[in-house]
Amino acid sequence: MACSIARTWSVIGEAWTPLILRDLTLGLRRFDEIKTDLGVAPNILSDRLRRLEQEGVVERRPYSDGGRTHHEYHLTDAGEELVPVLVVLTGWGDRWLADQGPPAIFAHSTCGHRAVSGVVVCSECGSPITLHDTRALPGPGEARGPGTNLIARAERARTSEP
Amino acid sequence: MACSIARTWSVIGEAWTPLILRDLTLGLRRFDEIKTDLGVAPNILSDRLRRLEQEGVVERRPYSDGGRTHHEYHLTDAGEELVPVLVVLTGWGDRWLADQGPPAIFAHSTCGHRAVSGVVVCSECGSPITLHDTRALPGPGEARGPGTNLIARAERARTSEP
Repeated sequence: MACSIARTWSVIGEAWTPLILRDLTLGLRRFDEIKTDLGVAPNILSDRLRRLEQEGVVERRPYSDGGRTHHEYHLTDAGEELVPVLVVLTGWGDRWLADQGPPAIFAHSTCGHRAVSGVVVCSECGSPITLHDTRALPGPGEARGPGTNLIARAERARTSEP
Repeated sequence: MACSIARTWSVIGEAWTPLILRDLTLGLRRFDEIKTDLGVAPNILSDRLRRLEQEGVVERRPYSDGGRTHHEYHLTDAGEELVPVLVVLTGWGDRWLADQGPPAIFAHSTCGHRAVSGVVVCSECGSPITLHDTRALPGPGEARGPGTNLIARAERARTSEP
């Protein structure tokens, strides 16, 4: 499907996968730790980690524990670049689905503030990106097919709006 | 689960849902348009739209077409705030999963640039949020249970790192 949302979803969209990535960002790196944290079945966790490894998001690193070799799971560069995705997912849930307040808050060492949130801003002007000031246009990798049967037309229609 | 990622996932994480939201942001508002664009089975699309309506992300608005009443689907305020989520999902896919170039590019009317991307920055200092400068700490809505059995401990460990 010629859509970067669909493709990203194909990597991170399975049940448990965002929470596995969350745990890796929080420093849980061992299979048993993640299993215990999430309460997920080992075969599912194993499947998801293998998939993330195949997709280049996670890598296994061996470590020795009393003579036996185990593995820790680490984020690759591609995996680390999913952190902002997790931050904005968190922000939406904090805002709309957290009656008791946010389950977690973020501290930002760059500025020293606590309880920061992630704001999605334009790479060019730095002001926030919203529905109303952003338009999608056909890109070089555009292709029509299931998932994008009409979309190019809609993108062109939006372009010509006032 | 006391996790804003898990909760957000419970709203948008089902198959097809991100693409339905994408289509709504692009101006496809009618059931048949979305069905045609995605090539999705009508019962699945119907189920997903109903779910999004229940969750307060989408609202139906009636319109008249030759005497018959139909419905269009519109994003609510909560739904519009998912647009930045879609933008960062797009950005990751554009960067890691688009050998032929991005399928779509964004134009930002605020600054007039084309081919902008969404950067996730700190709400306080405006600099980009990355794995290495951000720490999660327990928040007011924290609760231990499946999905967060170990996480508070990990958050506290990260807090005490140098």
